Amino acid sequence: MRETWHERFIDSPGVLKGAAREQTIVRVLDFHVGGNEFITMAGPCSVETEFQLMATANHVRRAGARILRGGAFKPRSSPYAFQGHGLEGLKMLARAREESGLAIVTEVMSEDDVPMVAEYADILQIGTRNMENYSLLEAAARSGRPILLKRGMAATIADWLRSAQLILNNGNPNVILCERGIRTFETATRNTFDVSAIALLKQISHLPVIADPSHAAGHRELVPVLARIAVASGADGLLVEVHPNPEKAWSDGEQSLDFAGFDAMMYDLEPWLELRGRELERREGDGALPMEAVG
Amino acid sequence: MRETWHERFIDSPGVLKGAAREQTIVRVLDFHVGGNEFITMAGPCSVETEFQLMATANHVRRAGARILRGGAFKPRSSPYAFQGHGLEGLKMLARAREESGLAIVTEVMSEDDVPMVAEYADILQIGTRNMENYSLLEAAARSGRPILLKRGMAATIADWLRSAQLILNNGNPNVILCERGIRTFETATRNTFDVSAIALLKQISHLPVIADPSHAAGHRELVPVLARIAVASGADGLLVEVHPNPEKAWSDGEQSLDFAGFDAMMYDLEPWLELRGRELERREGDGALPMEAVG
Amino acid sequence: MRETWHERFIDSPGVLKGAAREQTIVRVLDFHVGGNEFITMAGPCSVETEFQLMATANHVRRAGARILRGGAFKPRSSPYAFQGHGLEGLKMLARAREESGLAIVTEVMSEDDVPMVAEYADILQIGTRNMENYSLLEAAARSGRPILLKRGMAATIADWLRSAQLILNNGNPNVILCERGIRTFETATRNTFDVSAIALLKQISHLPVIADPSHAAGHRELVPVLARIAVASGADGLLVEVHPNPEKAWSDGEQSLDFAGFDAMMYDLEPWLELRGRELERREGDGALPMEAVG
Amino acid sequence: MRETWHERFIDSPGVLKGAAREQTIVRVLDFHVGGNEFITMAGPCSVETEFQLMATANHVRRAGARILRGGAFKPRSSPYAFQGHGLEGLKMLARAREESGLAIVTEVMSEDDVPMVAEYADILQIGTRNMENYSLLEAAARSGRPILLKRGMAATIADWLRSAQLILNNGNPNVILCERGIRTFETATRNTFDVSAIALLKQISHLPVIADPSHAAGHRELVPVLARIAVASGADGLLVEVHPNPEKAWSDGEQSLDFAGFDAMMYDLEPWLELRGRELERREGDGALPMEAVG
Repeated sequence: MRETWHERFIDSPGVLKGAAREQTIVRVLDFHVGGNEFITMAGPCSVETEFQLMATANHVRRAGARILRGGAFKPRSSPYAFQGHGLEGLKMLARAREESGLAIVTEVMSEDDVPMVAEYADILQIGTRNMENYSLLEAAARSGRPILLKRGMAATIADWLRSAQLILNNGNPNVILCERGIRTFETATRNTFDVSAIALLKQISHLPVIADPSHAAGHRELVPVLARIAVASGADGLLVEVHPNPEKAWSDGEQSLDFAGFDAMMYDLEPWLELRGRELERREGDGALPMEAVG
Repeated sequence: MRETWHERFIDSPGVLKGAAREQTIVRVLDFHVGGNEFITMAGPCSVETEFQLMATANHVRRAGARILRGGAFKPRSSPYAFQGHGLEGLKMLARAREESGLAIVTEVMSEDDVPMVAEYADILQIGTRNMENYSLLEAAARSGRPILLKRGMAATIADWLRSAQLILNNGNPNVILCERGIRTFETATRNTFDVSAIALLKQISHLPVIADPSHAAGHRELVPVLARIAVASGADGLLVEVHPNPEKAWSDGEQSLDFAGFDAMMYDLEPWLELRGRELERREGDGALPMEAVG
Repeated sequence: MRETWHERFIDSPGVLKGAAREQTIVRVLDFHVGGNEFITMAGPCSVETEFQLMATANHVRRAGARILRGGAFKPRSSPYAFQGHGLEGLKMLARAREESGLAIVTEVMSEDDVPMVAEYADILQIGTRNMENYSLLEAAARSGRPILLKRGMAATIADWLRSAQLILNNGNPNVILCERGIRTFETATRNTFDVSAIALLKQISHLPVIADPSHAAGHRELVPVLARIAVASGADGLLVEVHPNPEKAWSDGEQSLDFAGFDAMMYDLEPWLELRGRELERREGDGALPMEAVG
Repeated sequence: MRETWHERFIDSPGVLKGAAREQTIVRVLDFHVGGNEFITMAGPCSVETEFQLMATANHVRRAGARILRGGAFKPRSSPYAFQGHGLEGLKMLARAREESGLAIVTEVMSEDDVPMVAEYADILQIGTRNMENYSLLEAAARSGRPILLKRGMAATIADWLRSAQLILNNGNPNVILCERGIRTFETATRNTFDVSAIALLKQISHLPVIADPSHAAGHRELVPVLARIAVASGADGLLVEVHPNPEKAWSDGEQSLDFAGFDAMMYDLEPWLELRGRELERREGDGALPMEAVG
């Protein structure tokens, strides 16, 4: 099967594991994504107000997050929805970094905005709708910032890796893949969380892979269990939506955790993360959980 | 959201959790599916020979399985493929039970075969292609045997629960749901393992839910990690394909584990199952892992 | 491409066009499905009352239909919905045939019902949910009646042809394929009408293919235009839901045409059917519209 | 249902038919898209050489095409594939317009390229992968050129109309929608041609809608029959890939017609287009084929 899989991904040789190729470890501030640590990125869907952002940053940091997420530019599917604060939002994110010590990940939606967003953010997010916007991928790659590449709604794993390869081809090795669910016939969840894609990618690729349980589920009740599943899948971290008052969020409130919900999730993840850590130690920190050794 | 979900499943009130409704616990021989124990069902796709079946039964029992799976009637998508040994296969399964002490789960594909299959099997499996074969559901329900109801390839969770409800309506409360992946555009895996469906079902329904990582993945390399994911999802057990020599299996060899692979999987699952057990104890055995309490 | 396609359908050699193989023409009463005539099958989703059925039969016959459809056994997805009149419904259908001269197509859902349904119906319909119910396919095949085989919701064309092949293997060459839409992420229509499947099947297979615009659309406003599209696709006929009072239909009312709507559809189809007829004549009645000759 | 549909598309009021709103008719050179004429856009996937382009332009013009298609910038899914000639390709397209009198439609993939592409092209194409690239949509809209908006692979009709609305919101009313198939589980065709989407859009929207049978089918043998189906669906035109030597095309050769194939298609479409014309006349040129009146 390995051979079959490698043929399927033949357009993207640079992202596949090979004899000499080590695991990609992305340095961000004073920590790493893709190493042994499980990294939680948390924060609101949109940067709304100074208060909302600071309160969230301080809270999620205390609960164990390392990276603050928040949208300054929003790819809202409706042209009448809130479009984001733009530059002002980026400045708020930078102030939140100063105050909290968290790194910042935020989406860039336009090639022309890349220099501005790269000035303020530690990681540039390429959103689901832009996974195959090759001009944006190239511009973001050339900024030198690590790239968080979300999977497109109808993107196969092979498509996704081709977009990652394009970033590498533009001189940027620091790509973090993010599984956020694919679009299928099932509507009880907002998307269908393709956890097998994470498991498969950890076997064939050296790139870090994280999970976005918020967009996968679309309902906050499912977010904690999907986070636990992500830990078991071998993912390197989480991207989670948290809001001080989800009922009043300007976007995606239904899938955002409130502070108490985030605390409960982090508390309950602890034994699962400890187990993950023990397994990694046993494997001498090669980034793979034991199951991957079977193949 | 709870309300929304309940509306979505309004045709199937009997399978939903309610104030007074306790978790469904299905007694099989001397153990239970849907209680605190995590139950592994393992065995070959098809019953091929006495030797193949006995060797597998003895092996998986020693590794911790409680139930032997094996097809005597095969819903082979090609009319030229092996169709199964029929009654002779059922008798082999019964001898394997005697010898190994394992319970037997096997698929019934025709309403006319229900009495015969029910005579030999402890659990009747309704296959993916028959999830909405209402005549078969009714006949199987009335046999009094517990029913393992696999999800249809394009069945929504709501569709699936309607089929479960139909079994309840025919006087049989012992339904075990089995997630085995849905059909989507992604072809790197045989099906798309909808683990969110398991998580969601554990929140809204009192029925036991198990996972079939073999059909979900379609490649044996992914089976162990999907099994670990199933544990984290709150599933009540596994249905796994195991064969003494997968390369020579008459069907589904690519997704079958060999004995060593099965042993490795069971060994590596142990700490994850211990953790699951501790969490359940902490929750006083109500069948829900901690995360479910957030919603 | 032809080669590729033939490889894809290699399990079903008997349904593919070959050098010597002629178009399958299914004789029903005094007319044919799969010959040059475009056959319209129309009637209610469910047989409800004598009046409803007779009124519909007489109306659709005058408007040009040759076959009356109507369900005596209903595969209702909800166990609480109307399940059909059963034998009494079959008898009503037989009386409608006597009175109107129309042939009868009705669904059989259980292998045990095959002899009874075959006694009353001219064509046995295998429904979407049972396309891979191999026991039912075999029983229906052996009845000797022509089989209308609806496509499963998640069935590929290759899966569908395998089921057709199974019917042929059981001694029954009279299979009519019916495209009724597949399940996808799009919800504006009830299903996604895969008209390319009809076009492709007319190129590779000698079996007649008809279209069910009612289930494909799910909304009556789209039914006439999908019917016109079916004519252009090379389909051999239509299966359309018609009801005297769709607002009060016991099932599928939203997608049923009323009598005036059916008349308007048939009237507006006329020039398109005339054009289809001229094209067939030009091709000396080989069953293919001109476009198919390009390949 | 009308009400339901309108609710579904409530974010995009400007693209829906209303009491006073007339059909959008897009003027291009000396003809119109969205009026009574059926407009064929044809040409190679990629602009390869001067000879290839001129030969194709002259040929398709003589066969009845009004617009020349050809990619100067290619959104190739593999980063190793041919990326297009860029500016040189645009200049070749402009020379082909001068020589042939055809209008030019070509894809723009980057906001920064919009001014340059708009200088040479008569219609800017937004490709499938960029349907929700809102920055590009805005930049393209503000160029003042008509926009050909291809449907995203996993875009619902509602998503697609939101993108169209965004173009209108940026001051550009000249949007032409192009159905090119959606991504589903079926792999016998490259995409699943959602012809119901065309039919539905002609009922609810005043925007012109065309069909791309080449990408929908993925195999040239199906292109002519899908073109005929598009005529029956009420579409306003076609976008078809034509190449002097498809076997040697640098991209998409398998789905490109050669000159003889294009001639045959255009010849065989003639009676269907005549019929379409007569129906439109009968309806006094309101842009709707008769079937739409039933709803």
